Amino acid sequence: MSKCLVAQSGGPTSVINATIAGIVKANQLNPIYDTVLGGLHGIEGILDERFVDLTNMSDEENQILCQTPSSALGSCRYKLKRDNVADFEKLIKIMDKYDIETLFYTGGNDSMDTVAALSEYAREHNITNHRFVGCPKTVDNDLMETDHCPGFASAAKFIATTAVSTWLDYNVYTRQEVFILETMGRDAGWLAASACLSGHVDVLILPEEPFDKDLFLKQVAQSIKEKNKCYVVVSEGARYADGRYVAAGEAKNDGFGHAVLGGAARALEEMILESGVASRCKVQDLSTAQRCHASEQSAVDVTESFRLGMSAHMHSANPSFTGKMVGLKRREGEKYDVEFITVDADKVANFVKNFPTEWLLPDYKGITDEAYAYLRPLIVGEPPLIVKDGIPAHVIPYYMR
Amino acid sequence: MSKCLVAQSGGPTSVINATIAGIVKANQLNPIYDTVLGGLHGIEGILDERFVDLTNMSDEENQILCQTPSSALGSCRYKLKRDNVADFEKLIKIMDKYDIETLFYTGGNDSMDTVAALSEYAREHNITNHRFVGCPKTVDNDLMETDHCPGFASAAKFIATTAVSTWLDYNVYTRQEVFILETMGRDAGWLAASACLSGHVDVLILPEEPFDKDLFLKQVAQSIKEKNKCYVVVSEGARYADGRYVAAGEAKNDGFGHAVLGGAARALEEMILESGVASRCKVQDLSTAQRCHASEQSAVDVTESFRLGMSAHMHSANPSFTGKMVGLKRREGEKYDVEFITVDADKVANFVKNFPTEWLLPDYKGITDEAYAYLRPLIVGEPPLIVKDGIPAHVIPYYMR
Repeated sequence: MSKCLVAQSGGPTSVINATIAGIVKANQLNPIYDTVLGGLHGIEGILDERFVDLTNMSDEENQILCQTPSSALGSCRYKLKRDNVADFEKLIKIMDKYDIETLFYTGGNDSMDTVAALSEYAREHNITNHRFVGCPKTVDNDLMETDHCPGFASAAKFIATTAVSTWLDYNVYTRQEVFILETMGRDAGWLAASACLSGHVDVLILPEEPFDKDLFLKQVAQSIKEKNKCYVVVSEGARYADGRYVAAGEAKNDGFGHAVLGGAARALEEMILESGVASRCKVQDLSTAQRCHASEQSAVDVTESFRLGMSAHMHSANPSFTGKMVGLKRREGEKYDVEFITVDADKVANFVKNFPTEWLLPDYKGITDEAYAYLRPLIVGEPPLIVKDGIPAHVIPYYMR
Repeated sequence: MSKCLVAQSGGPTSVINATIAGIVKANQLNPIYDTVLGGLHGIEGILDERFVDLTNMSDEENQILCQTPSSALGSCRYKLKRDNVADFEKLIKIMDKYDIETLFYTGGNDSMDTVAALSEYAREHNITNHRFVGCPKTVDNDLMETDHCPGFASAAKFIATTAVSTWLDYNVYTRQEVFILETMGRDAGWLAASACLSGHVDVLILPEEPFDKDLFLKQVAQSIKEKNKCYVVVSEGARYADGRYVAAGEAKNDGFGHAVLGGAARALEEMILESGVASRCKVQDLSTAQRCHASEQSAVDVTESFRLGMSAHMHSANPSFTGKMVGLKRREGEKYDVEFITVDADKVANFVKNFPTEWLLPDYKGITDEAYAYLRPLIVGEPPLIVKDGIPAHVIPYYMR
C-alpha cells in the first residue's frame, strides 16, 4: 500500500475542511492507502515537503474539523505554470520519495487546472503510479460541470440570514432609507442572487447584467416612492457594459486618476446620494465573514462536502482515475438529492459558470422562480455545532502545530 | 383593570423583542392589566395613537418573537424634550383616553431620560394614575447602574465568532497580512473588547484610550515581526487625545476639508500601508449585522431580556413604581447568575458607562483576566432556533401588519 496526499488551495470556505474529513474517514473505513498525508499551504507547501499525518484522526477531531471554517491545512495562490517543468519534476520526485500515489486537491478553477496539468504531465511522461484528483470548493459557485460547489451554500445561507436580519433592522424607523448589501462574486453573481432567499431584495445588481446607472436610480426611486425604503444587493463584480467595475467609482471615468475608494456598494451609495434619489443610505459589505462564518453552515453543504471527499477517495482506488474532478449532479424529482459524478478537470479549469441571465427578472428586480428552486434546497439544515464558551469549536490549523 | 403599553426606542438589538415577549407572557400568567398594547415606532407612534394589541399572543408567536432581531414594534429617534410641554400633555391625554396605566419603554440612555422626564412631569402635576418603567437595551453596553445591557451579549457573541472565523481565514496564506475588524461603539469599547473572547486579537483600539498613531504602528510592526501577521480590532469611536475620531482620517488634520472616507478601520489601514509597516491589509466592518444577526443570539442574553420584561411587569403592580429602570446585578460566586434590580431612571439617563481602562492591558495588547471573567459568561449558550427553509424564522414586524 501507499500514501495519499490531500491539500487545499485558493480562498477558504466554511465547509472546505469537510472534504478533507471525508477523505480521512473514508480511508479509515476502507483503507486504500496506508497513510493520509495533509500537505500544508497547497502546492507551495508540498514543494517544501511540509506534511502532516492525518491517517488516524479521532472521530472527535474529524467532527470538529467539519465545522472549522477556512483551510485547516493552509492555502496558497501558487499556480503551477505549464511551462515550469522544474516544478512538475520536483512534485513527482516528492511523490515518489514519500510513496504518494494520489494527490487530492481541493480548490476552484485554478486548482482544477493544476489537477489537469499534473495528470497531463504524468501522461506525457508515462508516469502511471501517481493520480491527481480535484475536489471542487468555492463560495463563488462558478465551476463548470457541477450543479453547485461545496462552500457556496453556507455562504449563501449566511448572506440570506444577514439580508433578513439587516432588512428587519433598516425598517424600524419611519424615515426614508436605502440599505445596500455587498457580497463577494467578482465574475459570477451567485452569492448576490442568494440574498433574494430572504424575500426582501428590491434591487439586485449582478456582474452578469451590464450596470445602467439611470435604470438603477430609477428602480431605487420607484421603491422609495412605494414604501420610502429600498433594499439593494450588489455583487462586488458589478460592471458597466464596457467592462469597468462599478466599484472603481465614477472618478475613473473622468480620467483624473482618483483613487479607488471602496467597493461597489459605496459607489452605489454615492450615486444615490448625489442624485438625490434618497437622502439616507447604509452600506454593509459582508467581506471576509461571508465565506467563513463558523456558526452558519448549511447542513446540506457540509454533508455534501464530506461525502464528496469520501466519493473522491473511493474513485481513486481505480488506477486510471486521474485528471478528474468529483462533482455534484442534482437528481430529477421533487425532493432535493444529489449524486456524485466525475468529470475531466480540464473541462472545469479556467472557465467560469455565470449566473444564468434567463434567471434574472428584468430591471434589477431579482430572480425567477427557477432560480429560487435551484437555490432554496442548498441552504437547508443546521448541523449540530460543538460550542465552547459560546464560540464554535475549531481545530487548531495544522500549519500552526 | 387597565392597560399597559410597551414600546421600543433607539437602535435595535438581537434580543430587544424578548423583553416585549416577557412582558406579554408575564401578563398572561399574572394579568395585572386587561390589555397589553404595543406602541408602534416608540414615542413617535404613541403620539399618533398607533397601537397593536399583544395581549393574547400565542406561545408560538411569543417564541418566534424572542428570536426575531430588531424592534418588532418599530423604533424612533424622537426625544421628548423637557421643555416641550405639549408632547407631555398629549401623551398623558392619550394614556387617559386608552386607560393606559403603565408605559414600558425599552431603550438606551435617551429612552431612560424619557422615562425619567415623564415620571417627573407626572409627579410635578400630581398625576398618580400613570407609571413609566424603563427596560434597558443596547448593544453598546454603556448604561449605568446595570451590570450589563440586554442586547450586548448577542452582539459580543457575533463579534467573537466572526473574529475567530476571520482569524482562521486570514491565516491560511503564508504571506504577510494584517486584518482589521471594526465594531460599533462610538463612546464605549465594550463591543470591540468582546472580540478578545476569540483569543486571537493582537492589537485592540478602544475609544477609552487615546489613540497614538506611533504606538499603534509600533505594535503592528512588532506582531508582523513575530509572526508575519497582525489581527487588529478597532471600535468605530476610537479617537485621538484631542477628541478627533480616528475615522475622520488624517485628511481632517491638514484643514483641506477632505471628505471623510470611511470608518476607523479604513483609516488604520491607510496608516499601515502608508507607513510601510505591512504591505497587505484586509478590513471587515461589521456594521449593522453585528446588532441583529438572527442566528447568533446568546442564550444567556435572550433569557435575561425575557426575564427582565417579566420582572418589569411584576414590579409595575406597585402603584408607586415609576421613573424606574429594571437592571441586572451579577451575583457573587463562581457560577454566573444575575438578579433583577430596580434603579432610578434618571441615574441612567444621559450617562455613559465606559469600558474600564484598568481592564486594558498596556500598549493596545488587549484586556485583563478581570475583563475576560466579566465577558465570558455573557455569550454562553445557543437557544433553540426555529428555522424555515434554512433561514431563522421571524415575526412580521407589527408596524407592517
